Amino acid sequence: MGESTSLWPYHIDNDIALLPFISSVNIACGFHAGDAHTMHELVDTALTAGIAIGAHPAFADLVNFGRSNMNVSPVKIYDLVIYQLGALDAFLKINGTKLQHVKPHGALYNMAAKDPVLASAVCKAVSDYDAGLILYGLSGSELINVANTLQLKTYSEVFADRTYQEDGSLTPRTQAGAMIDDEEQSLQQVLQMALHGTVHCTTGKTILVKADTICIHSDGAKALAFARRIHQTLNKKGIEIRTV
Amino acid sequence: MGESTSLWPYHIDNDIALLPFISSVNIACGFHAGDAHTMHELVDTALTAGIAIGAHPAFADLVNFGRSNMNVSPVKIYDLVIYQLGALDAFLKINGTKLQHVKPHGALYNMAAKDPVLASAVCKAVSDYDAGLILYGLSGSELINVANTLQLKTYSEVFADRTYQEDGSLTPRTQAGAMIDDEEQSLQQVLQMALHGTVHCTTGKTILVKADTICIHSDGAKALAFARRIHQTLNKKGIEIRTV
Amino acid sequence: MGESTSLWPYHIDNDIALLPFISSVNIACGFHAGDAHTMHELVDTALTAGIAIGAHPAFADLVNFGRSNMNVSPVKIYDLVIYQLGALDAFLKINGTKLQHVKPHGALYNMAAKDPVLASAVCKAVSDYDAGLILYGLSGSELINVANTLQLKTYSEVFADRTYQEDGSLTPRTQAGAMIDDEEQSLQQVLQMALHGTVHCTTGKTILVKADTICIHSDGAKALAFARRIHQTLNKKGIEIRTV
Amino acid sequence: MGESTSLWPYHIDNDIALLPFISSVNIACGFHAGDAHTMHELVDTALTAGIAIGAHPAFADLVNFGRSNMNVSPVKIYDLVIYQLGALDAFLKINGTKLQHVKPHGALYNMAAKDPVLASAVCKAVSDYDAGLILYGLSGSELINVANTLQLKTYSEVFADRTYQEDGSLTPRTQAGAMIDDEEQSLQQVLQMALHGTVHCTTGKTILVKADTICIHSDGAKALAFARRIHQTLNKKGIEIRTV
Repeated sequence: MGESTSLWPYHIDNDIALLPFISSVNIACGFHAGDAHTMHELVDTALTAGIAIGAHPAFADLVNFGRSNMNVSPVKIYDLVIYQLGALDAFLKINGTKLQHVKPHGALYNMAAKDPVLASAVCKAVSDYDAGLILYGLSGSELINVANTLQLKTYSEVFADRTYQEDGSLTPRTQAGAMIDDEEQSLQQVLQMALHGTVHCTTGKTILVKADTICIHSDGAKALAFARRIHQTLNKKGIEIRTV
Repeated sequence: MGESTSLWPYHIDNDIALLPFISSVNIACGFHAGDAHTMHELVDTALTAGIAIGAHPAFADLVNFGRSNMNVSPVKIYDLVIYQLGALDAFLKINGTKLQHVKPHGALYNMAAKDPVLASAVCKAVSDYDAGLILYGLSGSELINVANTLQLKTYSEVFADRTYQEDGSLTPRTQAGAMIDDEEQSLQQVLQMALHGTVHCTTGKTILVKADTICIHSDGAKALAFARRIHQTLNKKGIEIRTV
Repeated sequence: MGESTSLWPYHIDNDIALLPFISSVNIACGFHAGDAHTMHELVDTALTAGIAIGAHPAFADLVNFGRSNMNVSPVKIYDLVIYQLGALDAFLKINGTKLQHVKPHGALYNMAAKDPVLASAVCKAVSDYDAGLILYGLSGSELINVANTLQLKTYSEVFADRTYQEDGSLTPRTQAGAMIDDEEQSLQQVLQMALHGTVHCTTGKTILVKADTICIHSDGAKALAFARRIHQTLNKKGIEIRTV
Repeated sequence: MGESTSLWPYHIDNDIALLPFISSVNIACGFHAGDAHTMHELVDTALTAGIAIGAHPAFADLVNFGRSNMNVSPVKIYDLVIYQLGALDAFLKINGTKLQHVKPHGALYNMAAKDPVLASAVCKAVSDYDAGLILYGLSGSELINVANTLQLKTYSEVFADRTYQEDGSLTPRTQAGAMIDDEEQSLQQVLQMALHGTVHCTTGKTILVKADTICIHSDGAKALAFARRIHQTLNKKGIEIRTV
C-alpha cells in the first residue's frame, strides 16, 4: 500500500477501502513509491483499524516502480533496507508502537527469492534492525530459507492475483498471463493454496506452497473485489484472516 | 556531512579528515544529499571516533541541495522530518545507540529560523520522535524559541564560515560576502562569538549571539583548515570542544 | 497529461479517453510527473488523434507534484525550461514534427503569473528554444504580458475546473473551494468565459478574462465528464474547439 | 563531464581544466548525474573552447551513478535515450548548433556492449533522433557492430584509465585493478592502443583494439594529469587530438 504519491487522494482511498478485509499491510517506503506523507497517513489509518504494519523496502527506482532487476552490491542492499525500515518505523514510533514485519518489494523480492547472497543481505538487515520482525517471503524461496537460518520468524507468502511457474516463482509481469484478472480464478487459487497447500502452475503441473499470508496488490484493478471475496469465502470455510 | 553521494570517495575522505577537530556531526539523510550508504559509513566512522551524531533533515530537493525555499505545508514538513530522523537513526540503532541531536538543513533551517509555524512543525516532529533529542538552531531564532517552549533541549548555533546580518540571520548565499573564505577572519569571528557572545554584522554593527555549537560546512573549500585552526586556538584559550 | 508514471495504465487510459474532446494537450516532462515512456506514448497517441502538443515544464519536485512554490534563481528556471522543452520535443522530432506550445505547470505557472522576473526567465527560454512556439499563460497574467513583449505568440488560458479570485489568479488548491467539482457549475463558468469574456470570482465580483484556450486537469475526478459536456455545449453554441 | 550537481563549483572547475587537452566531451544528462544547469554551463564552455559535444545518456539511477546493471525493457531504453538526447541537444540548439555524438554511460554502455538487443535499442534511438550523430562505443563491442549495421557513423573507444579483460570488455569497477591510477601505465597503454592497435589484458594476453577516441574519466583523481601527459605525448608522436 501507499504505492502512490500523496497527490491522488483516490489512491489512498482505495488502500483504505481494503482495510476491512485484510489483517496486515506492507507500506511503500519512498524508494519505489510512496513518500513521508502517504506513509504517515497509512500508518495512522492501519493502526486505527487494528491492522499489522510491515515495511515494503525496494530498490531506489521510482521510474520503474522498483520492478527492474538491479545489480546492487549486497552491502548497499543491506543499507537501503536499513534506511527504509527506519524511515517507516519512525511513523510507528511516534504512535508508541513498531513494525511487525518486512516484505521486500518487486525486483528486490524476486531477486532475493532466488539468490541466497541477496537474501542474506536483506535478512541480515532485518535481523540487525529488529530481530523480532517477521519476514514475509515467497513460499519456498531462498529468502525464507535464509531468514530461517538467521532465526528470523518467517511467513511464507502466496499470491491471489499472480500465476505461478513450475519452480515456484511468479510468472514475470513482462510475460502474458502473469496477472490473474478473473475473480473466480483468483478465489479458487487462494482456496487451493490455503486449504490444500498446492497451486496449479502455468504448465498445468501442481506444486506445493505454504500459505501463511496471502498477497493482494492494492493497485490491482480488482483488488477490492478480490479482497472482499477472499475474506468472505475463507471465513465461511472457517479460516480466520488475522494478525499474529 | 555526507553531503555527497557514495561515488566520490574523496568527499567522504574530506568528511573523515575533519573528525579529529569536531565533537558533533550533522549527517545528510538523503533528501538534499547523501544516501543510505554514505549515512551508514559516516555513522560507523563517527561512532568509532567518539563523535556525537545528529540528523540533518532537509526539503526533498536534490537539484538545489535543499537550499531553495519551498512552500511546503507544516503537516508535510512534520512528516519529512520524522522520515529522515527514522532513516538515519536506523544506522545508530544497528550499532546499539541513537541520535544525539537534530539540525535542519539549508532552506528548512533558515525558513524555520524566522517562521514560528514551520519551527513548530520541525520541533514537534523532533519532540514526538524522541523528546530527549537536542535541537541545533540558529542563535536567536524562532527555531530555538519554539523548541524551548516545547521543552526540547537546544543548542544555539553560530557559524565559522558565514557572515551575519543585523537581524541575526545569515547573509543569504545568493548575496556577495555570504561566505567567509579567509582563515583569519573566520577564526576571529569564532573567538569573538565563543568568548564574548557577539558578532560583527555586514553592516558593521555588533549583535549578541549564543555560541553553544559552532558550524563548519564540510564542503567548504577550507573546511579542514578552518576546523584545525579553530580547534587549536579554542583549546589554547582553554575552551574545550566536546560533546555533551 | 502524462501526469502519472508508466505503471498505472488506467491513468494513460484516462488521458486517451479525453482526446476526442480536446484540441491541444500539455504533456508532463518528468520533473513533476511523467517519464520518458509516458511522454513517448502520449506524443504518439496525440499525433495520431491530430491534437496539438505542448510541453508542461515544472519545478523539479516529484514529491509535491510541482505544486510547491520554490525559490529558484531565474538562471536555473531558464535552464530547467530549456531542458524539459528539449526532452519532450525529442519525441516529436522522431515523428518528424515539433512542439506547438508551452504551458508551465503548477507553482511555476502561478509564480510566473505574478512575478515578471520569473515570467521573463520562462518566456526567454521558450523564445530562445523556438520563437515560433505559443505560450499558454493565465489570462491577464505577467506571463502573458512578458511573452507579448518578447513577441511570442500567446494564448490566454481560462480554467474549467478552478475558481477565480478578484485579482484574476486561481484560488490556491490549499484553500476550500479551489476546485469546481460540479459539472453544471463548470459548464456555466466556461460558457460565460468563452461567450462573454468574464468570470464570477469567489467574492461574487465579476472580472474580465480572455479565453483563447480552456484548461481541464486530466487527473480531475470528473475530467472526462467535464470535457465531454464542454465540448458538446460549445459546439452547439457554434464555438468550435480546434487547434491553430 | 558534468557528472556532479551544480553545487560543487570545483567539480565544474575540474571539467573546465581538462578542456585544453581534449577534443570531444560527453556531458551527463541528469539521469546518473548532472542537471539542467551543469549541462548549460558545460555546453557553453565547451562550445567556446571549440570542443565537440556528445550526450552521455544513462539509466535513471542517481544513487548508483548509473553504474548498476538494470533490467529495463528495450522499449524503455529507447525512450530514455531519446529523452536525454533531446534534453542536452536543447542547450546546443539555443546556441545555434547541435550534438556531434552520443556515448552511453556506465551500465548502459557496458550492457549494450555485450547485448545486441540493448545495443539495437540505443542505436535505433540515436539514429531516429539524428542519423548524422556519431556513436561512441567500446572497441569491438556489439554497440559498434549494431550501429554499423544501422549505418550510423561510429568511433571505437579505448580507455586510458581502465584495464581490459581478454574478451575486450573493461574490468568491472567492482574488481581490484579495474582502474589505472599510475600515470606512466596509463600513458603506455594509450600509446600502445593508438600506435599499434593493441592492449595488454589483465591476463597478460594482448588483444586488438581500434582507437578512434580515447576516454578519460573526468572524475578520476588524476584526470588532469593523465589528459595533459597523453595530449603532450601523442602530439610529440605526431598524433593530433582533434575533433572531426
